[in-house]
Amino acid sequence: MAALSEETREALIKAAFEARELAYNRYSNFRVGAALLTSEGTIFKGANIENASYGGTICAERTAIVKSASEGKRSFAGLAIVSDVISPISPCGLCRQVIREFCTQDMPIFLVPADYPQADAAKGGVKETSIGELLPDSFGPEQLELPRMPIARL
Amino acid sequence: MAALSEETREALIKAAFEARELAYNRYSNFRVGAALLTSEGTIFKGANIENASYGGTICAERTAIVKSASEGKRSFAGLAIVSDVISPISPCGLCRQVIREFCTQDMPIFLVPADYPQADAAKGGVKETSIGELLPDSFGPEQLELPRMPIARL
Amino acid sequence: MAALSEETREALIKAAFEARELAYNRYSNFRVGAALLTSEGTIFKGANIENASYGGTICAERTAIVKSASEGKRSFAGLAIVSDVISPISPCGLCRQVIREFCTQDMPIFLVPADYPQADAAKGGVKETSIGELLPDSFGPEQLELPRMPIARL
Amino acid sequence: MAALSEETREALIKAAFEARELAYNRYSNFRVGAALLTSEGTIFKGANIENASYGGTICAERTAIVKSASEGKRSFAGLAIVSDVISPISPCGLCRQVIREFCTQDMPIFLVPADYPQADAAKGGVKETSIGELLPDSFGPEQLELPRMPIARL
Ligand SMILES: [Zn+2]
Ligand SMILES: [Zn+2]
Ligand SMILES: [Zn+2]
Ligand SMILES: [Zn+2]
Repeated sequence: MAALSEETREALIKAAFEARELAYNRYSNFRVGAALLTSEGTIFKGANIENASYGGTICAERTAIVKSASEGKRSFAGLAIVSDVISPISPCGLCRQVIREFCTQDMPIFLVPADYPQADAAKGGVKETSIGELLPDSFGPEQLELPRMPIARL
Repeated sequence: MAALSEETREALIKAAFEARELAYNRYSNFRVGAALLTSEGTIFKGANIENASYGGTICAERTAIVKSASEGKRSFAGLAIVSDVISPISPCGLCRQVIREFCTQDMPIFLVPADYPQADAAKGGVKETSIGELLPDSFGPEQLELPRMPIARL
Repeated sequence: MAALSEETREALIKAAFEARELAYNRYSNFRVGAALLTSEGTIFKGANIENASYGGTICAERTAIVKSASEGKRSFAGLAIVSDVISPISPCGLCRQVIREFCTQDMPIFLVPADYPQADAAKGGVKETSIGELLPDSFGPEQLELPRMPIARL
Repeated sequence: MAALSEETREALIKAAFEARELAYNRYSNFRVGAALLTSEGTIFKGANIENASYGGTICAERTAIVKSASEGKRSFAGLAIVSDVISPISPCGLCRQVIREFCTQDMPIFLVPADYPQADAAKGGVKETSIGELLPDSFGPEQLELPRMPIARL
């Protein structure tokens, strides 16, 4: 996967900050913004949309993915994530699974600290990772197709 | 809540059909499209976005809601839902809960048959309902604020 | 569906209170207990098990259902639900959907106030309902089998 | 974390096979069984419990966790997982997140092939891993407590 240009990376991080502004974080009081770059160069922005029944909550990353996927855009080039926390925050397992469905193993994922750019840190404090790193040995569509044992009752 | 004009209702139903085209229904082979009308007159389209881990699936209705809510649009005037089934299909409980978080009890929800308009049925076969009807006696933000008993260990 | 005896109903309500004690409610500070009666007369107890990623939360009712279903018990005769709130609290949409998968439309569901039995209320303040009432016009396995339109691209 | 004895490991793997028998896999036709060992030596068994609304599905691993956690057992010593596939299958991201909430980073997780024990493979073909490996750089309760930036509107 080709590395993103410095400008594209900056635009993606900026979009994640913008996305965060629109979090519906009524229950956690924790805002997260995500910006997803399609292979065609469009950015989809997501924020966490919470629910009174906590299990109904959809995170920023999944919001960005379904926004894009439901517009027919399912090939991606990068993802940036930012919260209110002064450290790069990593996606939860639910989001990793949904990212896994659509993104390549090595697509760059930028975990951005809330005080980006950090003056004294490399890359402004951004941690660059990938779904290959975040969800190793993952369960995906291929696993459903693997050879199976015939089912016999115990 | 003011009734939608005939034109708006038609536009919303048409958008639900368009939305359905972009379902990612790799596992169920079941397409659903949803179109959500904001109070300002914008339509957000959602489709089901499934996952190899079935629990990671996000339905059309929830996709439409988080798309809109993450753009800061959280006041709604109507929702139309269509699948491939020749009957009006109703939203699942998960979606009803997420609709409940943002929509008024009486906002019109249009359940549209796949062969809409049905020549011999009233309103083309569309069933009009609301979240008040679909999720009666619901659990929402208010319930989390109700008076509680002090907690004592058994 | 045969009505439960007074004794069985009381035992089920008591079990819901016991179940509530074991809630893992670290994020909401809201405890819920559920007690599910199988057709064979066994009671399975569930509590809300929350998660730092709120979407990973599993409510008391769903906990009780999967506990029982994973033991091969999938035929039920009643469900009681209690929280810390001094009012009968109704299950969320997610739980209604999961209850729908396994329970009959008219199986009794008892919504129990935290200060049960309320001296001045009929039935001690318990509200009796059913999934037929709580999830009307529901989406279930049958809907996936309904006749479909052939798929044609727009 | 102390390694499990050979006998305990075998008992846990056997329990995962037993658990798999009770999968409610109506939609995926994919069975998974999980067996979770508490620190006290009790084994909780889980199977996948699916739903007509796919998003309502709860996997085997999460079923085992909520079963145990709702009985007040939240300290664990090992987890075994088996499906019908002739390869060790890894938990999905949703389950990894729920495992993360309760299990230590290095608790042994045994991914068991359906044809266990494989005659020609080390350890019968079982892959041993941990949540530290499966969900690196995870999001958990601690992240919600990290120092935050004051919120200012853009
Ligand atoms: Zn997430
Ligand atoms: Zn739904
Ligand atoms: Zn619930
Ligand atoms: Zn899983």
